[in-house]
Amino acid sequence: MELGVIGLGRMGQIVVDRALDAGHDVVAFDLSAEATAEAAEAGATAADSAADLCDRLGEEKRIWLMVPAGDPVDATLADLEPHVGEEDVIVDGGNSHFEASVRRAEEVDAAYLDCGTSGGPAGAHLGFSLMIGGPEWAYEAMVPVFDAVATGNAGHERMGPSGSGHYVKMIHNGVEYALMQTYGEGFELLANGRYDLDLEAVARTWNNGAVIRSWLLELCEEAFREEGNDLGDVADHVAGGSTGTWTVQEALEQETPVPLIYQALAERFGSRAPDEGRFSRRLANRLRYGFGRHDVKRE
Amino acid sequence: MELGVIGLGRMGQIVVDRALDAGHDVVAFDLSAEATAEAAEAGATAADSAADLCDRLGEEKRIWLMVPAGDPVDATLADLEPHVGEEDVIVDGGNSHFEASVRRAEEVDAAYLDCGTSGGPAGAHLGFSLMIGGPEWAYEAMVPVFDAVATGNAGHERMGPSGSGHYVKMIHNGVEYALMQTYGEGFELLANGRYDLDLEAVARTWNNGAVIRSWLLELCEEAFREEGNDLGDVADHVAGGSTGTWTVQEALEQETPVPLIYQALAERFGSRAPDEGRFSRRLANRLRYGFGRHDVKRE
Amino acid sequence: MELGVIGLGRMGQIVVDRALDAGHDVVAFDLSAEATAEAAEAGATAADSAADLCDRLGEEKRIWLMVPAGDPVDATLADLEPHVGEEDVIVDGGNSHFEASVRRAEEVDAAYLDCGTSGGPAGAHLGFSLMIGGPEWAYEAMVPVFDAVATGNAGHERMGPSGSGHYVKMIHNGVEYALMQTYGEGFELLANGRYDLDLEAVARTWNNGAVIRSWLLELCEEAFREEGNDLGDVADHVAGGSTGTWTVQEALEQETPVPLIYQALAERFGSRAPDEGRFSRRLANRLRYGFGRHDVKRE
Amino acid sequence: MELGVIGLGRMGQIVVDRALDAGHDVVAFDLSAEATAEAAEAGATAADSAADLCDRLGEEKRIWLMVPAGDPVDATLADLEPHVGEEDVIVDGGNSHFEASVRRAEEVDAAYLDCGTSGGPAGAHLGFSLMIGGPEWAYEAMVPVFDAVATGNAGHERMGPSGSGHYVKMIHNGVEYALMQTYGEGFELLANGRYDLDLEAVARTWNNGAVIRSWLLELCEEAFREEGNDLGDVADHVAGGSTGTWTVQEALEQETPVPLIYQALAERFGSRAPDEGRFSRRLANRLRYGFGRHDVKRE
Repeated sequence: MELGVIGLGRMGQIVVDRALDAGHDVVAFDLSAEATAEAAEAGATAADSAADLCDRLGEEKRIWLMVPAGDPVDATLADLEPHVGEEDVIVDGGNSHFEASVRRAEEVDAAYLDCGTSGGPAGAHLGFSLMIGGPEWAYEAMVPVFDAVATGNAGHERMGPSGSGHYVKMIHNGVEYALMQTYGEGFELLANGRYDLDLEAVARTWNNGAVIRSWLLELCEEAFREEGNDLGDVADHVAGGSTGTWTVQEALEQETPVPLIYQALAERFGSRAPDEGRFSRRLANRLRYGFGRHDVKRE
Repeated sequence: MELGVIGLGRMGQIVVDRALDAGHDVVAFDLSAEATAEAAEAGATAADSAADLCDRLGEEKRIWLMVPAGDPVDATLADLEPHVGEEDVIVDGGNSHFEASVRRAEEVDAAYLDCGTSGGPAGAHLGFSLMIGGPEWAYEAMVPVFDAVATGNAGHERMGPSGSGHYVKMIHNGVEYALMQTYGEGFELLANGRYDLDLEAVARTWNNGAVIRSWLLELCEEAFREEGNDLGDVADHVAGGSTGTWTVQEALEQETPVPLIYQALAERFGSRAPDEGRFSRRLANRLRYGFGRHDVKRE
Repeated sequence: MELGVIGLGRMGQIVVDRALDAGHDVVAFDLSAEATAEAAEAGATAADSAADLCDRLGEEKRIWLMVPAGDPVDATLADLEPHVGEEDVIVDGGNSHFEASVRRAEEVDAAYLDCGTSGGPAGAHLGFSLMIGGPEWAYEAMVPVFDAVATGNAGHERMGPSGSGHYVKMIHNGVEYALMQTYGEGFELLANGRYDLDLEAVARTWNNGAVIRSWLLELCEEAFREEGNDLGDVADHVAGGSTGTWTVQEALEQETPVPLIYQALAERFGSRAPDEGRFSRRLANRLRYGFGRHDVKRE
Repeated sequence: MELGVIGLGRMGQIVVDRALDAGHDVVAFDLSAEATAEAAEAGATAADSAADLCDRLGEEKRIWLMVPAGDPVDATLADLEPHVGEEDVIVDGGNSHFEASVRRAEEVDAAYLDCGTSGGPAGAHLGFSLMIGGPEWAYEAMVPVFDAVATGNAGHERMGPSGSGHYVKMIHNGVEYALMQTYGEGFELLANGRYDLDLEAVARTWNNGAVIRSWLLELCEEAFREEGNDLGDVADHVAGGSTGTWTVQEALEQETPVPLIYQALAERFGSRAPDEGRFSRRLANRLRYGFGRHDVKRE
């Protein structure tokens, strides 16, 4: 089938490549002419605007957006608006907040699918996991493309109505934070512990048959192989956090306790504390003097 | 090569089977004659005591213990003591505390390998992950058996001196607790959340290409398939906890923060609270009356 | 001076009483005629509507709202709107969200003070702690009343511009949750521990000179005295949670880790889990069967 | 009555002073002649050894040890051993582990009281809170001294048999850690938050009538007054931790969840992380590159 792809960053380019590989026709557009040219080189038809892309797609347009969450999605939808109608399908494959996707699904004339995409650039070869929300007919219409972009038929699913795809992806990411921090705690304890261990070998042994084997643990193994047993100059500074924050916010609304996910997020915040450190602990330091005349450590 | 196996529960029987499948000769003994007979049926030579097993093994004995951690290990070692010497190798494949393994390695005349074994009964087909501590020569001597019992050569490793195998396994289990609880939090939020989701389908989609894919997530998928979307009558009662407790105790000794692992353990304790509930929360309930005259909920 | 009080529940009545005791004149109104009559009996002038209350106050009205947070505040402000101008002062003494107070301060013609009020009904005798935000002149104009309603001059303070009073009160409440849960943890451990202790005596001994002495600990002492050492039929069910939720939400926005406050809130949510228990722990229970064939406890 | 005091550091000297003030006779000894002289100047009789102190006390000796926990207690008991019998009473007023106190109570011929002492140097004027374990007759015999050293009769209590005093004190300290960290979280959020607040004024306002008022909050007020609103050069480094560690260890043994106390302890450990930071978060930083090719922040 024919697919339009708007947004040709690392992830969008993978969508283009996998769709082409599966024999689909792709029309591609990015604000960067260079990115568009790259897609064209891979075999896509280049478009020089969202309008042009729509023109080239003809009727029953199928358009995949892979642009950054937030304003870029709304801006792209505004560009598409004069050119799409109710027989068309738009997929948002980015990390949008599910409530934004619900709103957009109502505002857009085309059928709107929110599609949580997991797997990252590594998905180029294996394919992604796609969590999709929106109208059933639109999902069905896109299945050939989803089959190509995902790991295959088992790697995508319609979760439910609009918003459900990004909802499931949001929680996926909250889980991801806590899994990463959990492995981190385990390796921190091994690194601080009583034996002089080869952490890459530990990770490799675990990845072969242990209960805790996983893709993230394979990435730990890779990290130790590439950075060394002490992680070299990798800083204690974990960036990101928006989808984890959304997960905790939703858990507060649902009054569902998620202490591990919360703690993983709090560790990120803690890793980004100002130079003078965490105020809470500085106060605790001083309070020990207050009641016990313990020495106050000072900078 | 020739291997003695003592302790023929579910896990011990797997050791027997995998060793036999790889072409090794096995002499097997269990306090239960029935279990010993089962191993004999599989192709092992039955022994009717630890002494008899030693007799049958001849010189340079290689003996794998798969008995419950604690006193049964010491009792078995006491039985073996008159029959083993420094050219022999004993492997403890159970979940012993690493400090007990260090002590036993010093007390036993034979070379002593502590071997953390992960994978559970599911390892019957795939093989286990084996984390091994103890003398290098003894590890090398056992490699043919480890190759058979593990997932293969990549599934076992000498971690370091005595105790290091069970040390790494202990921390593996602490990580395991937190991974399980993390997936639990994610699915709890999905179950309580805004969409009516098919949790097996969510797990299956995630297992195909998502960042958080893992063996434990495959077991989640299986759990929803077998128990239903609401987990049916599965109780909020998580048993076990000794290796997780050891992990936290060791982290306290090393002054290493492990808040996620701790919280996962605390959830187990909380799931086993008495009928009247958690005292801390009952007191908080009452304190709200104390300062604010809020209604006290009573049983 | 002359003060109007609208909202004569337990807290509003205390405002009336303390203002009268300090020699101020009070005009009082509540939607319940009974509550208004009670205030009149205490010495206030009864009004039969917000409009009537304004009439009776004359110029430079000083009006204290002690109505439930949310719509009742907006409804009362709507009633007052035709009757108040920029020389008047309205105090919101309830638990409004600070952002609602910022909005109201902009919408209302009168000067608007958001006033976090802590101390609860017990403040009747001692006076409250008042955390106030809004225009400085309005705060100064109200000082005689604040002196009366608070524990005295040290018990009230202008924190800053509009919203700051309710902001500080919000965080006060977050802290309150965690302090309560902390004492709860300590007494839970004492109750479960190795000695058969008289918890009231423990609390009393601590309240006399120990580092952790506090008013909340005095309330613990009272709780054990009145409910018994085992807290009798007090349920494991902690109600409330809105201000604690707001605190955590704000901490997420500020990227400030508050793990203890979060955990205290999560304990409340956990205490209100459905009858079948926490889904996360039910899944963990089942997963232990998945990898280890451990028995699944079932209801 | 007559009291011997061994160990004349800050806390021991306060015991001497308060006993003298209450009209008791005190014989004092410290390994430092200077400290002994200081006690003599305050009105105590100087002893030049533990033996000499025993000689001067005559029969039915009452001896208070205020020496550091651990070996110094055992060393002092060894010195006293030849000189004390079953009609004598020894009080250990330090922070010994309760199990050490149980052991000592069995080993020592004299009646042995373990006495948790809270209040710190500030207790010089107000008196301490004393939590006491051991034989009832010995407790009764010491009441006149306890009345003097504590805040008065309400400030001391026999908690139960040997060990119970230090047990209750241990848990007191665990609670103390979490209370301090909780106030720290609240003030951190205020310091990072939306308003430019005077934190000393916040603390002062809270201490006058608010639910969360406490002695620790008075110490917060003092800290901001003395260090400034931003705590100046006070470092993010919280020392200590032994009694909190014991509390968590005991909670693990009792399978009692204490997540807030644990987290407060973990914050201390975190504040003492090596220069390169927390390994767990460094690994999480690197993993984000692994799956998403996010930039790795490096030192």
